[in-house]
Amino acid sequence: MDIKSYLTDTRQLIEEALAQYMLKPEGILADHLTAMHYSLFVGGKRVRPILCVAAAEAMGAERKKALPVACALEYIHTYSLIHDDLPAMDNDDLRRGKPTNHKMFGEAAAILAGDGLLTVAFELLSDPGHEVGLSAAERLRIIHIIARASGPSGMVGGQALDLAAEGRETSLDKLKDIHGRKTGALITASVQSGAIIGRADERKFAALSEYGMLLGITFQIVDDILNITSTPEQLGKAVGSDAVRKKATYPAFLGLEESKTRAYETVNAAIAALADLGNEADHLRELAHYVLTRTR
Amino acid sequence: MDIKSYLTDTRQLIEEALAQYMLKPEGILADHLTAMHYSLFVGGKRVRPILCVAAAEAMGAERKKALPVACALEYIHTYSLIHDDLPAMDNDDLRRGKPTNHKMFGEAAAILAGDGLLTVAFELLSDPGHEVGLSAAERLRIIHIIARASGPSGMVGGQALDLAAEGRETSLDKLKDIHGRKTGALITASVQSGAIIGRADERKFAALSEYGMLLGITFQIVDDILNITSTPEQLGKAVGSDAVRKKATYPAFLGLEESKTRAYETVNAAIAALADLGNEADHLRELAHYVLTRTR
Repeated sequence: MDIKSYLTDTRQLIEEALAQYMLKPEGILADHLTAMHYSLFVGGKRVRPILCVAAAEAMGAERKKALPVACALEYIHTYSLIHDDLPAMDNDDLRRGKPTNHKMFGEAAAILAGDGLLTVAFELLSDPGHEVGLSAAERLRIIHIIARASGPSGMVGGQALDLAAEGRETSLDKLKDIHGRKTGALITASVQSGAIIGRADERKFAALSEYGMLLGITFQIVDDILNITSTPEQLGKAVGSDAVRKKATYPAFLGLEESKTRAYETVNAAIAALADLGNEADHLRELAHYVLTRTR
Repeated sequence: MDIKSYLTDTRQLIEEALAQYMLKPEGILADHLTAMHYSLFVGGKRVRPILCVAAAEAMGAERKKALPVACALEYIHTYSLIHDDLPAMDNDDLRRGKPTNHKMFGEAAAILAGDGLLTVAFELLSDPGHEVGLSAAERLRIIHIIARASGPSGMVGGQALDLAAEGRETSLDKLKDIHGRKTGALITASVQSGAIIGRADERKFAALSEYGMLLGITFQIVDDILNITSTPEQLGKAVGSDAVRKKATYPAFLGLEESKTRAYETVNAAIAALADLGNEADHLRELAHYVLTRTR
C-alpha cells in the first residue's frame, strides 16, 4: 500500500474508533460532551494515533489491537490544544480553520472539555471492555509511558517552559529541551506504545524510541517553518504568530534554510534508527517523510 | 486507636508520602512544580486518601500498600480545586485560608499546575516503582475506577453541570445528580480503590461502594451547610458565596435544619451499609461521623 492510501485508510479507521469510543453528546451531559466532540472531530491530522498503529503493525500486530491506545493519544493531544489555545495561554482564535474551543463554548466549558478529554484517555486505556488482547501488565506499562510523556516531565512541563520563555532570551539548546517535552514526548510515547502493543523486544523498542524522538524533533522544526512559509488557508490557523510573540523557534535561531536542512537531517536520522527492522517498518519510514513534507 | 489519633496519624503518613512521591520543585521545571506543590501542601483535610487507606485497612491490608493510590487521589482532588477556582470558573481568591493558585502564580500557570497534577496522578498509579504488592490487573482496575470517577461521567461532568445550572431554576433531584458526580464519585472511588487494595470480595466491595456513595452525599450536604454557618476563618474561604451566586444547595431547597437532618440520616445509612463488616471497619464508621461533624 502506498503511503497516501495507508494514511487515508488508517485515518478512516481511527475516525471510526474515535466515534465509537467517545461518549455520545446526548443526555444531561450533552453540552459538555459536545464541546469535547467539537475539538476531537474538527479535523486533525491524527499523527499520533497513526504512529501508534504503524509502530504496532511494524512489530507484526494487527492494527485493530492498537486502536484504543491510538484514540487515547488523540484525546490527550486534543486536550492539550484546547488548553494551549485558552486566553490565559496562547489566546488563539483559530485552530484547524475553525474557532477554537473557548471561542465556541466559552472559557469555562473549554477548560472542562480539556480536563474531560485528558481524563477519559486514561479511562479508555484502562477500560476492561477494550482489552484487545493486551495483558494487564502491558496496558499498565503503556499507561505509565503515556502519563509520563503528558505530565510535568513531558508535555505539560514543556508548555510551562514555553510560556515562561516567551519574550525572554533563550538558547537553541533550551529550545530543543522545551520542544522535546512539549511535542517530542507524546510523539515518542505514541511510537513506544505501538511497540508494546506489537510486543517489540528490547532492541526493537529502543530503535522505535529513537525513531519517535527524532521524528518529534522533525515535527516541531517543520511546525516552526510552516508558521512562516504557509498561508492561513493551508495551516487553518494564524501564520507568523511565532514572530509576533517573539517565540523562540528553529528559524529564529538558524534561519529558514538551515532549519529546513536540519529537519531533513533529523528525519534521515529517524529513518536510520530503523535500519535493523525489515520492510514491515516501511510505513514508519514513509511516515517520517510525510512529517517532513507536510504542508499543514 | 481513637479517631482523632487515627486521623492525625494517617494524615502524617499521607503528608510524608505526598512529599516523597511528588517531583521536587527544583531544576528547570522549578516554577511549574512550585505551583503544583503550593496547592498540594496548602493544608487539605486529606479526606479522600484517608478513606482509601481506611478502606484498605478495613479489608486487612497494610496501610502502606494504599499510599500511592491515596496520594494519586489527592493529586486529582487538588487539580479539581485549582481549576474550579479559576476566574473563568468560580473565580475564588481564597482557598484554605490562602490565595488560590491563580492568585499566586497567574492563570496560565494555574491551568498547567492542574493539568500536571491530574496527569501525574495516573503516572503514579501506573509507576512500576510503586507497585506495593498489587497485581497489574488490580492496578488497572483501580486506574479505571478513578479515571471514570474523575472524568465526564464523574467529577468533570459534575462541574460542567454545576456551572451550567448556576443562576437557573433547578430541582433537588438535579442537585443530587450534580453533587453525586462532582463530589460523590471521587469519594466513592477512594473507598472502592481501598477495597481493591485490601482484596475485598464482591459482597464487601458492594458494601464499601454503598458506604462511599452515601458518605459523598453527606460530605456535600455538610459543605453546603458550612458555606452558611461557618466563618471565613474556620472555613479558610469565603462563606455565603453559594447564596451570592444563587447556587443550588441543600439548604436552599430544604432549609438549614432539614439539611442537617438529611446529613445525619445519610451518614447513618452509610454506617448501616457496613453492618456486615466487623470491628476492623470501625475507623470507617468513625470517619463517617467525622464527615458529619467537621467544621471546615
